[in-house]
Amino acid sequence: MKLKIVPLFVALLLAIPALRADEGMWLYSTPPREVLKEKYGFDLTDKWLEHVQKSSVRFNSGGSASFVSGDGLVITNHHVGFDSLQKLSTKDKNYVRDGFYAKTQAEEAKSVDLELNQLISIEDVTAQVNAALPEKASPDEAFAARRKVIATIEKDSLAKTGLRSDVVTLYKGGAYHLYRYKRYTDVRLVFAPEQQAAFYGGDPDNFEFPRYDLDICLFRVYENGKPIQPADFLKFSKAGPAEGELTFVSGNPGGTSRLLTMDELNYLRDNSNPYTIARLKRMEVLLIAWSGRSAENARRAKQDVFGIQNSRKVRDGQLAALYDPVFMAAKEKAETDLRARLAASPEKFSDALAAFDKIAEAQKTIATVAEKLRYLEAGNGFSSDSFTTARQLLRAGDERPKPNGERLREYGDAGLPSFELALFSEKPIYEDLEIILMADALQAMAEKMGATDPLVVKVLAGKSPRQRAAELITGTKVRDVAVRKKLYEGGKAAVDAANDPMIELARLVDADARAARKIAEAQDEVKKQGQAALAKARFALEGTGNYPDATFTLRLSYGVVKGLEENGRKIPAFTTFEGLYERSAEQGNREPFELPARWVKAKSKLNLKTTFNFTSTQDIIGGNSGSPVVNRAGEFVGIIFDGNIYSLAADFAYDDRMARAVSVSSAAIIESLNNVYDAPALAKELLTGKQK
Amino acid sequence: MKLKIVPLFVALLLAIPALRADEGMWLYSTPPREVLKEKYGFDLTDKWLEHVQKSSVRFNSGGSASFVSGDGLVITNHHVGFDSLQKLSTKDKNYVRDGFYAKTQAEEAKSVDLELNQLISIEDVTAQVNAALPEKASPDEAFAARRKVIATIEKDSLAKTGLRSDVVTLYKGGAYHLYRYKRYTDVRLVFAPEQQAAFYGGDPDNFEFPRYDLDICLFRVYENGKPIQPADFLKFSKAGPAEGELTFVSGNPGGTSRLLTMDELNYLRDNSNPYTIARLKRMEVLLIAWSGRSAENARRAKQDVFGIQNSRKVRDGQLAALYDPVFMAAKEKAETDLRARLAASPEKFSDALAAFDKIAEAQKTIATVAEKLRYLEAGNGFSSDSFTTARQLLRAGDERPKPNGERLREYGDAGLPSFELALFSEKPIYEDLEIILMADALQAMAEKMGATDPLVVKVLAGKSPRQRAAELITGTKVRDVAVRKKLYEGGKAAVDAANDPMIELARLVDADARAARKIAEAQDEVKKQGQAALAKARFALEGTGNYPDATFTLRLSYGVVKGLEENGRKIPAFTTFEGLYERSAEQGNREPFELPARWVKAKSKLNLKTTFNFTSTQDIIGGNSGSPVVNRAGEFVGIIFDGNIYSLAADFAYDDRMARAVSVSSAAIIESLNNVYDAPALAKELLTGKQK
Repeated sequence: MKLKIVPLFVALLLAIPALRADEGMWLYSTPPREVLKEKYGFDLTDKWLEHVQKSSVRFNSGGSASFVSGDGLVITNHHVGFDSLQKLSTKDKNYVRDGFYAKTQAEEAKSVDLELNQLISIEDVTAQVNAALPEKASPDEAFAARRKVIATIEKDSLAKTGLRSDVVTLYKGGAYHLYRYKRYTDVRLVFAPEQQAAFYGGDPDNFEFPRYDLDICLFRVYENGKPIQPADFLKFSKAGPAEGELTFVSGNPGGTSRLLTMDELNYLRDNSNPYTIARLKRMEVLLIAWSGRSAENARRAKQDVFGIQNSRKVRDGQLAALYDPVFMAAKEKAETDLRARLAASPEKFSDALAAFDKIAEAQKTIATVAEKLRYLEAGNGFSSDSFTTARQLLRAGDERPKPNGERLREYGDAGLPSFELALFSEKPIYEDLEIILMADALQAMAEKMGATDPLVVKVLAGKSPRQRAAELITGTKVRDVAVRKKLYEGGKAAVDAANDPMIELARLVDADARAARKIAEAQDEVKKQGQAALAKARFALEGTGNYPDATFTLRLSYGVVKGLEENGRKIPAFTTFEGLYERSAEQGNREPFELPARWVKAKSKLNLKTTFNFTSTQDIIGGNSGSPVVNRAGEFVGIIFDGNIYSLAADFAYDDRMARAVSVSSAAIIESLNNVYDAPALAKELLTGKQK
Repeated sequence: MKLKIVPLFVALLLAIPALRADEGMWLYSTPPREVLKEKYGFDLTDKWLEHVQKSSVRFNSGGSASFVSGDGLVITNHHVGFDSLQKLSTKDKNYVRDGFYAKTQAEEAKSVDLELNQLISIEDVTAQVNAALPEKASPDEAFAARRKVIATIEKDSLAKTGLRSDVVTLYKGGAYHLYRYKRYTDVRLVFAPEQQAAFYGGDPDNFEFPRYDLDICLFRVYENGKPIQPADFLKFSKAGPAEGELTFVSGNPGGTSRLLTMDELNYLRDNSNPYTIARLKRMEVLLIAWSGRSAENARRAKQDVFGIQNSRKVRDGQLAALYDPVFMAAKEKAETDLRARLAASPEKFSDALAAFDKIAEAQKTIATVAEKLRYLEAGNGFSSDSFTTARQLLRAGDERPKPNGERLREYGDAGLPSFELALFSEKPIYEDLEIILMADALQAMAEKMGATDPLVVKVLAGKSPRQRAAELITGTKVRDVAVRKKLYEGGKAAVDAANDPMIELARLVDADARAARKIAEAQDEVKKQGQAALAKARFALEGTGNYPDATFTLRLSYGVVKGLEENGRKIPAFTTFEGLYERSAEQGNREPFELPARWVKAKSKLNLKTTFNFTSTQDIIGGNSGSPVVNRAGEFVGIIFDGNIYSLAADFAYDDRMARAVSVSSAAIIESLNNVYDAPALAKELLTGKQK
């Protein structure tokens, strides 16, 4: 295997002409009807849109999914279901490694703390949000006013509709939409392959293509003890997609940075990405070394290791783009061009013209509190579930007595059901893993801030990081859910009286953490106002029909099934089952390329020509994992599970020359359920849309 | 396996009473005769000393060894021989993975670039070195004068004796000794086990005990095409050592930091160790990920991965000690006590009293050039053999025309034979591995110095780090040994005319690199003068009989074979072959605990009660790897290959409560050569001291 070098993005089209490549993570409320009509002759009807929207499901834990049967069956990726699989597993019952299949409803395993969201409606509340801001408010005042009106809108909507209600900031501040979701919290595990089949090729093949991964996981949604009967679900295509076919991806891209100014991008390049990458690599080494010590260590750390390695590859790829002079020159040119267009009408666009410097200044101020934001407010100095929980209890005690609109946002009334679901989760938390993670986090914070920094001295309390972590983790009671409930219900008085060492640590740093956050929130408000001015200017120049940066809300992307050419070599759009066996042989069946035992056994029964994974041109990003790939007929033809290595620059710009979305074909799902996993009933439910 | 926490060094005896624990890496010229007599009733005779000294061998590549037969057989660790094994291996001939055994002399494989050193004599040249310094010289002048006199002493000695002649700085500047070595460069590989036997348990078990590693490698030294017949070699003990037995370690500890002032220690804690650890972890992630992509990648990166993981564990352990408040308080107290004793005679010790601040100031100045020292002068911004070689060629062209005493030290005449051996090495260098390493190094430098730093901009030359690395590594010709020779022999004119991109890169940064080095060298001279004053004061207070910090020169340590108690659990001093099979079973034979095929096969033939590895109390550190463990009779009873996790603080202080040296028993070597490796002739040579 030759060294893979991410090529320059030589001809990046950063300005967005009307009929360009398959770019865009489109709002369901502003879908790209015209371009689909013009370019593909496809009529995007309201009916089609509503059907796909309501068939789409968000995993609140960070992924996408879809309903695929009238009996509440939901399909997502294995790596999205991973969190549930890990929480349901024990030393003796390892669903991650071994897979899971409930042959009967009775065997379906209830997830520990999963929340699924189905998008019901979108409402533009921009005017209402902006109207709440006093004239000439300071950033602090503006932030407070915006927080208050958003909390009020969300709370009122929840009270009125009973639906989860989130006000989403779009265009980095250019618009505010209210998203309402139906929440599902009785979600039961139906099927997962062994991880070695789902994540075949492991970290080395992650973000690569060709791929051979059955990255799927099936759940069933219940209400009142019975499977729900969703009105909308995607009909499964047995054949899968064809080369060149127009397909859609309906999912929840987590976040992109395409609208950032150059100053903001430079901050990512010079400050936040290097910090994050160093942290990830440090944790990766820690956990891999710890995993090496025993099989049980490895099992406990498995999900963290996966997440860290995945993020590391993403961040390395992003930083490579930010260090690519051609890529950055193209971004620079786009900004220069925009500035020139604004400067042509200086009165009309005075706010937008002033926005660049305001955003740059705000970014500089945020940089001054970045360390405290990271180590204290984001908790990176204390990486552990124990600390997270302890701080939630402390802050819940402080925040909940305040008026709804004045609380830290995560303690707002509208979000409480989801907050409490997570807080009272019965997920396993491992003391030994918590200690090594927290010790390393304390050590990292001390290294960065300095061993003699007063805050570090205060946090370490005369102990070494290892000792301090061990004392805090073994001393705290917050891993006991009953204790958590008692302290949460008892409020501030109970929390204060608990004398829990981890809660006391959270208290020790809370003033500093809140102070840093207050500064960052005010400056973020400044940036939002700047971005709002830029958005307004762009709407004036380009119309309002463009898509905003991703926000982990439901979006529609479109594109075609298509391979790519890499260093003169054609990489076909499809792989087949046959390729899996070839890949394993080529790698001498060594880890992580060893064939799962079930696949060795099933080889002779399988149709080896079955399409397995495929690439397509949709504009996707992290959070899209598990998104259904849907054809013109609204049928499920595949499931997104990855992007290739070239897609990692998608955070900053879309480029369809080399970047590809990577999916499992629906054909592979049916064939493997029938002939590898001995699950014909499940295959039948997918094909018929009915359980029986 | 429970989380291992390095315990506090609660009762550290940092002052050194006459009859204390088995501390000390003793100079052969100042051996610890009295304490051995008093504590162990052992007479350390000149004859015993000379025999062990001349039997001891230094691997110039960074380890220790000993002659173990009259036919020139040398034993060291597998991980010391690793470098030679790797350089002799190819894709199809993997001696690291598979091991090696030359049943006949003809099959012995000549090492690519190995240099072995046998210490012949030690001469104190302190007076001569110090006399050469002008009165009231500036640090620059003092450094230049010291460099000159040392170069002259070394050159004269080489001319007079024909022996490799190194002036060694002892006591961090308190003394200068001339070490003369016999050099051997025709060194042939005789035997190595497969790495899985040598490094059983891999990174997880590294620095741990119990252990089950056959960490040995055998070479034979030739001169004039024939094995040498060393007058001194160690007789092999078939039985190995006994519990509680007095034993000695004769080897080359690489470096310790015990004499550093608190300001210097704090610099290690706050600056250099965090830097190094972050670099190691970043490289570890890079190489592990790259190794995952193919078996051949893994083979190419294997030695780097081993070295990086090993160093990472060492550095993490050192930093843990530096973050241990009790440990640091003890160091602080020792310094405070010394200052108090000096302050009692302020006139007599005025230089020593002033030294602390001078050293602190010098350290601060060094910190201002630390980035350039690391990235440019040490080459960490360009990590690749190609850059190292290119810079050597550039600098050799610039330095060699200068008078010997004015050159950068590594280009002095006395060192040229060793320098040229390394420069013209025919070792394999892999372009793909070079590119990823250099790309990551460029990226790391840019992240640290800033993407817009003028030096970074100049180095990257408008390319991304990946592109720039690929262009430089593929463009340079210096990996061709013939090109190297031509440029070296052609001198500056040839180098200038070569227009080699990597040499031009080295030239581009050379002024900055040299400027940083010049500042550091002058400040290092200031530190040496300060340490000289402190050493003089210590000699006055404590006598001259103490040992200096380690300097990768031959030292003698002593101690007893002894287990330890850890968290109330007794860990016996010995493991046996039986334990190896148990360890593998307990870990489900998973990597890196899988049994080598030969050991599976041999089990029934083996005496499973054979002692395998053992712990003892000698004061050792990195560089001691491969040191013989010798009994009172001067016999080889084992070979050092590791220290336990508690020994990692040995850089700063010795502590025999938990810290242990870890060795392979001579009994295990004989038994495994006979019954696992089908090499009875080799076992016989070890036991009889004769090849035939």
